[in-house]
Amino acid sequence: MKILVLHGPNLNMLGTREPEIYGSLTLDDINAALSQLALDLGIEIECFQTNSEGRLVDRIQSAAGLFDGILINPAAYTHTSIAIRDAIAAAALPAVEVHLSNIHNREKFRTKSYIAPMAIGQICGFGADSYLLGLRAIFNHIKK
Amino acid sequence: MKILVLHGPNLNMLGTREPEIYGSLTLDDINAALSQLALDLGIEIECFQTNSEGRLVDRIQSAAGLFDGILINPAAYTHTSIAIRDAIAAAALPAVEVHLSNIHNREKFRTKSYIAPMAIGQICGFGADSYLLGLRAIFNHIKK
Amino acid sequence: MKILVLHGPNLNMLGTREPEIYGSLTLDDINAALSQLALDLGIEIECFQTNSEGRLVDRIQSAAGLFDGILINPAAYTHTSIAIRDAIAAAALPAVEVHLSNIHNREKFRTKSYIAPMAIGQICGFGADSYLLGLRAIFNHIKK
Amino acid sequence: MKILVLHGPNLNMLGTREPEIYGSLTLDDINAALSQLALDLGIEIECFQTNSEGRLVDRIQSAAGLFDGILINPAAYTHTSIAIRDAIAAAALPAVEVHLSNIHNREKFRTKSYIAPMAIGQICGFGADSYLLGLRAIFNHIKK
Amino acid sequence: MKILVLHGPNLNMLGTREPEIYGSLTLDDINAALSQLALDLGIEIECFQTNSEGRLVDRIQSAAGLFDGILINPAAYTHTSIAIRDAIAAAALPAVEVHLSNIHNREKFRTKSYIAPMAIGQICGFGADSYLLGLRAIFNHIKK
Amino acid sequence: MKILVLHGPNLNMLGTREPEIYGSLTLDDINAALSQLALDLGIEIECFQTNSEGRLVDRIQSAAGLFDGILINPAAYTHTSIAIRDAIAAAALPAVEVHLSNIHNREKFRTKSYIAPMAIGQICGFGADSYLLGLRAIFNHIKK
Amino acid sequence: MKILVLHGPNLNMLGTREPEIYGSLTLDDINAALSQLALDLGIEIECFQTNSEGRLVDRIQSAAGLFDGILINPAAYTHTSIAIRDAIAAAALPAVEVHLSNIHNREKFRTKSYIAPMAIGQICGFGADSYLLGLRAIFNHIKK
Amino acid sequence: MKILVLHGPNLNMLGTREPEIYGSLTLDDINAALSQLALDLGIEIECFQTNSEGRLVDRIQSAAGLFDGILINPAAYTHTSIAIRDAIAAAALPAVEVHLSNIHNREKFRTKSYIAPMAIGQICGFGADSYLLGLRAIFNHIKK
Amino acid sequence: MKILVLHGPNLNMLGTREPEIYGSLTLDDINAALSQLALDLGIEIECFQTNSEGRLVDRIQSAAGLFDGILINPAAYTHTSIAIRDAIAAAALPAVEVHLSNIHNREKFRTKSYIAPMAIGQICGFGADSYLLGLRAIFNHIKK
Amino acid sequence: MKILVLHGPNLNMLGTREPEIYGSLTLDDINAALSQLALDLGIEIECFQTNSEGRLVDRIQSAAGLFDGILINPAAYTHTSIAIRDAIAAAALPAVEVHLSNIHNREKFRTKSYIAPMAIGQICGFGADSYLLGLRAIFNHIKK
Amino acid sequence: MKILVLHGPNLNMLGTREPEIYGSLTLDDINAALSQLALDLGIEIECFQTNSEGRLVDRIQSAAGLFDGILINPAAYTHTSIAIRDAIAAAALPAVEVHLSNIHNREKFRTKSYIAPMAIGQICGFGADSYLLGLRAIFNHIKK
Amino acid sequence: MKILVLHGPNLNMLGTREPEIYGSLTLDDINAALSQLALDLGIEIECFQTNSEGRLVDRIQSAAGLFDGILINPAAYTHTSIAIRDAIAAAALPAVEVHLSNIHNREKFRTKSYIAPMAIGQICGFGADSYLLGLRAIFNHIKK
Repeated sequence: MKILVLHGPNLNMLGTREPEIYGSLTLDDINAALSQLALDLGIEIECFQTNSEGRLVDRIQSAAGLFDGILINPAAYTHTSIAIRDAIAAAALPAVEVHLSNIHNREKFRTKSYIAPMAIGQICGFGADSYLLGLRAIFNHIKK
Repeated sequence: MKILVLHGPNLNMLGTREPEIYGSLTLDDINAALSQLALDLGIEIECFQTNSEGRLVDRIQSAAGLFDGILINPAAYTHTSIAIRDAIAAAALPAVEVHLSNIHNREKFRTKSYIAPMAIGQICGFGADSYLLGLRAIFNHIKK
Repeated sequence: MKILVLHGPNLNMLGTREPEIYGSLTLDDINAALSQLALDLGIEIECFQTNSEGRLVDRIQSAAGLFDGILINPAAYTHTSIAIRDAIAAAALPAVEVHLSNIHNREKFRTKSYIAPMAIGQICGFGADSYLLGLRAIFNHIKK
Repeated sequence: MKILVLHGPNLNMLGTREPEIYGSLTLDDINAALSQLALDLGIEIECFQTNSEGRLVDRIQSAAGLFDGILINPAAYTHTSIAIRDAIAAAALPAVEVHLSNIHNREKFRTKSYIAPMAIGQICGFGADSYLLGLRAIFNHIKK
Repeated sequence: MKILVLHGPNLNMLGTREPEIYGSLTLDDINAALSQLALDLGIEIECFQTNSEGRLVDRIQSAAGLFDGILINPAAYTHTSIAIRDAIAAAALPAVEVHLSNIHNREKFRTKSYIAPMAIGQICGFGADSYLLGLRAIFNHIKK
Repeated sequence: MKILVLHGPNLNMLGTREPEIYGSLTLDDINAALSQLALDLGIEIECFQTNSEGRLVDRIQSAAGLFDGILINPAAYTHTSIAIRDAIAAAALPAVEVHLSNIHNREKFRTKSYIAPMAIGQICGFGADSYLLGLRAIFNHIKK
Repeated sequence: MKILVLHGPNLNMLGTREPEIYGSLTLDDINAALSQLALDLGIEIECFQTNSEGRLVDRIQSAAGLFDGILINPAAYTHTSIAIRDAIAAAALPAVEVHLSNIHNREKFRTKSYIAPMAIGQICGFGADSYLLGLRAIFNHIKK
Repeated sequence: MKILVLHGPNLNMLGTREPEIYGSLTLDDINAALSQLALDLGIEIECFQTNSEGRLVDRIQSAAGLFDGILINPAAYTHTSIAIRDAIAAAALPAVEVHLSNIHNREKFRTKSYIAPMAIGQICGFGADSYLLGLRAIFNHIKK
Repeated sequence: MKILVLHGPNLNMLGTREPEIYGSLTLDDINAALSQLALDLGIEIECFQTNSEGRLVDRIQSAAGLFDGILINPAAYTHTSIAIRDAIAAAALPAVEVHLSNIHNREKFRTKSYIAPMAIGQICGFGADSYLLGLRAIFNHIKK
Repeated sequence: MKILVLHGPNLNMLGTREPEIYGSLTLDDINAALSQLALDLGIEIECFQTNSEGRLVDRIQSAAGLFDGILINPAAYTHTSIAIRDAIAAAALPAVEVHLSNIHNREKFRTKSYIAPMAIGQICGFGADSYLLGLRAIFNHIKK
Repeated sequence: MKILVLHGPNLNMLGTREPEIYGSLTLDDINAALSQLALDLGIEIECFQTNSEGRLVDRIQSAAGLFDGILINPAAYTHTSIAIRDAIAAAALPAVEVHLSNIHNREKFRTKSYIAPMAIGQICGFGADSYLLGLRAIFNHIKK
Repeated sequence: MKILVLHGPNLNMLGTREPEIYGSLTLDDINAALSQLALDLGIEIECFQTNSEGRLVDRIQSAAGLFDGILINPAAYTHTSIAIRDAIAAAALPAVEVHLSNIHNREKFRTKSYIAPMAIGQICGFGADSYLLGLRAIFNHIKK
């Protein structure tokens, strides 16, 4: 089983970016923790970060056939990108949406997700743990 | 560590209720799976279901001092109950909100949660697995 | 054929409650008229009133297997209860929604029903006669 | 007692028009069933169908003095015609609004009625039975 | 100078229709008063009433070349007819919109007019006097 | 009969202010035309302009007992002043609201009037003629 | 193959009506161009214009069995007529909606169509060419 | 004179619940202060707290005949309960609504009250003093 | 302790202004009752009424240093004045907002207050008694 | 005459992507059909697909001077990109917007286009035929 | 060149008013800094502060002919005054709107300006520097 | 002091793009004027234009540590990009938002900025001068 892990815009800034909201772990820390969990679960993961909506679309499209599922934190594009939503529908791969922060107690525009209706489910609010829970979620989903 | 697991209205109907949305597991199956995971994590849980908003409020209030956290699927009350929201704030216990179904691709009124802004985070869409992921999430949160 | 008749909050006050809106018949009068009509149609009915949302949910759930249909006046909960809506969907019994008053020429918040989309149909505005028409409607529906 | 039965636009297509929503009875079938019930109740009815908003207004106006009440299915004009609303108010005759389908679980624009606030009540969702229940409703109302 | 006076739906009911809102004058009374004023002003008028939106459109279209202006009470179509709005724009004749009642203290949906942005101006609230003021208004407008 | 004529903010600028919208007549021209018409009708008028909302309220209050009616162009305060609305209700004098321009084909915020529901009626769009029509309207209203 | 071409309200005014929006061709010019293209495609067309919503509904209903498809410019009724929408659904014929002007850069109320969700597709903004493109579109659709 | 004092959900948590919003007094402290004031005013009070919407409705209904008025802090149900609103209307007793916190500078959903339009008046923002002022208010109201 | 009592627009009309809404007491009666209560409480008050928004702002600003608190009935400006809101914030004095009528069962625009979020609390619906309760409220608040 | 054909995000997935909505033709099939039609019309076309909003903007800008018009299917960016709208305005080239699916009977957010007000017109719902009709439309437009 | 500098309500409180939002400079400090910059630019300025909407309107009107432009901080009236907007349009002088605070990260009602569409431009968020930048802006604008 | 100047989509078209809105200066002209002012102020600037949202995010992120502040005209992305908003928050550098045109008197969707709440302030409407004022603003801000 092979999972593509996608990190959206500004997630490369983790650790320095608003630590009171996003915590002090870096993206490398998160990727390392994900790799460790993947090892435990006996699966492969590949991680990719970009600030570009178009490149996220490219990457999702090219995942079809090579990956069994997608774990994605679309970050700011969660709330503005129909293109990523359509890409997930087009790729026809199971996807899980995760967020570091609790999007329900921040600005109102962060409560709405264009991506979630195309995903299996959504996990938010647990910091880096959101990713680890998300990896378990997609792993369990595909196993069934 | 002791976690109170709360199931809101109609969750006692699981297994027979709209299985194409909610799956074929019963609430007993879910509670059993949670107990097994609690055992693995070395914690205690107590499960409670009710169709009454007032009794959910009662139970949350009385959890203070006896439990370390709350795992709650408020079901229909997610979208209509400010009383449960206030109870969680009053109890001052960490809470995690879970949903069996993906509330983002059903009726529009199900996308809004009064509870989530008072919770650490929200997990939805993974069927019974939402609960298991939720138990891990609150366990990890309290451990830190 | 056996029909469960459910009366929501404040309907026990009929006869004394705002008679210019709800008429001067009591709930007992309505139940008696329903019993008479049930006799004429050769069916059984059972009547139940409560002011509690949770108990309405309980009663709808337990109707499955014992009743062939539900005749319900959800009163104030019509406009605020997703839990009752979900209970009707979960019970998988045909339901008819009735109202004494014409909910379309009162306050705006009374024109919206969470229950109606789960019901076969809705009858409103005919005073106690709404119940009698509703009983005929569910009787005819089940016979087909 | 004499009741004017009015059928709005497209109801002449019944039987062939979207039978999964509107059933397979024709408008003649419905009129025949209404005539039979009128006979049973000892009253007279007159049926009229048109696709024109203006002609519905004409007919409602000319009913004053000749009829004791109106049974109307305004169909699509339910949601767009203030002229029919005003005509019913002007005619000062009791009116009952009926719909074949459950207007609450179709498109959102069908849940709103300009006519209902001028009617005694509204019945929807019971197929041809909506008309028969409506005839009983207006009969009972006038008798009182 | 020749003015076409158009009366929309239900205005033929004046005198009997809700006299507490519309007064006790009949449409003939209003037309007579308009004729008298036309005589005083030295102009010709022609009056026409219909309940049909389409026939109002027909009449407005055919006014071009035969009349110098239009005095219209679109009644209920004020709030729902884009076709009449477009007809007035197409006819390219000056038009004045009048209403018997004060549309600003009735139902909210009566405060919006599709016609008014295409008219020179709007006069409402003065009963039959609205028409007489409207005839003076269009007379003065054309004279300039 | 004595009528108070009130001109709201910026109407003292007439003649120079945006003549393509408001015409080239000055406020003195309008007052002179009103005086002439008052003479013709055999009534008295008194004219007053101010840019201050509070002073308009003062003037309306003090009109009670001294005047038989109010002719008011509230200008910009039409859309923002509940205080003037309340003053008219408090003074308990008949009032007519007039506007030079057609408020229905300008910015959307100009279509709403706080004053109109307290007035007998509203006249807009006829330039200075709106005032003359308004004076006739209030004159006719009081005579009845 | 036989196509019914329907022209809604005010389209008989083409050529004289607001030529800066609708162009200088008359409806006869458009019908002639359509006939020429029909000849080229080897199909029959029949053209019909009316200002009446009810008559458009009549015509759509009677098309079933006689025509293979409908090409309709509902004009002003696009935005207000649920009756025409229902007629198209009832007739169960493929329909294409066309508009002369670009409805997306005019008044906001023109951007919404009640008809389009019942049509195969919509074409707007190309003047008379919208009709010719529409005829090709329905021709291609039926051929498949 | 006898007043029923009703405390809604979570008010039993006072003193420990979010003291920065609700203050450090307990519900017993408030009831004691109310009893003292009742003594001073020469009236009787009875205090009741529940977390259940249905039981609040029960209690209000049974107050008719036994009490002269109701002092109610509906807490979270203020914003969601039409059932309590209807119960107050049905009981036909004067009621005063109070809130500890200033509901106008918290979350937007707390500014709207279903109960207030059925009450004599509303008092909010003064902590426990809101209750004491409310008791005076209903006392004065009944005395008149 | 010294309290500034501010009365907004039209309150000088009390006694004559719509007595069915505002009661028959005059503003002098209210001021006298307030003075009597001030005497009882051992504090000083100064009363001021104006119809001008700007003068209310002036008065609030100049209260800083001279008064310990403000008791204000902003009347119509409650719903339209951000300037008064800002003045209260700028003066940095505790303020209590009162209303004679129950603003929650009148026009919808009266339910919203720009002032209330800057005040300690709001009291409405008790006629002149609202002021007396308000004076007690601010007195108690300052004493603490 | 030379036309730039632009395909937005996810259109490279055609044929495999949700064929029940978008059909089974690939983008190459569509480009081939367009080339064939271009040949028939005696014009040149150049086709370009990208998933990047920024690159679409780049391409539209650089079209000025080299192309006579633009045929664009902005796909998901239709509903979210003001940058593409501005690019079309800046390039000052005639543009036609096309969509494969009928955007009026899908999710509500797909009915709104930022691009259409800058285009000559919009064609949607005819599958690959939308492109061919669009090419004819822009060809005819430029020829005039 | 002569510029009128207008300060709206509560700006006379600067220095003492909520310094965490508005800074610690007084209005005199700002006027002094503006005078110094005016000297540097070789122009004249005149400064005026008032809490009254009406007097701001008066001042703007009387500026025509005496001043070359207006620099205005309308403060709270920015969001509520159509009268000031109309005055600026009537005066036909170039105006620049400035704000001390960043109106985009405060209450939502502060993001909307009635004045800005009538101004050349708007500057906000730079404290006293907003005025200095504004003076440069209007100076540069008039020079061109 | 070193300032990064960022130009968003379509600004490279300046001079040729809609000159009636954006003026006839090119982006090079603006950059030259900025460089001259930077020289005068004794600071360094670096200018960068791109049509890509992602690349703007990249550039903002990499500015941390190398620049002291950001001057940004996000153009169309002002209204649609949460990613750029988040990047500015993440970079933790002071930013000033500028616009050439007055965004308050164009389309309604241009009045809202996702970026402004993260900036120190916003300047719009002064053409190229907006940039120069913006450079002064950020220079002054950093100096303090």
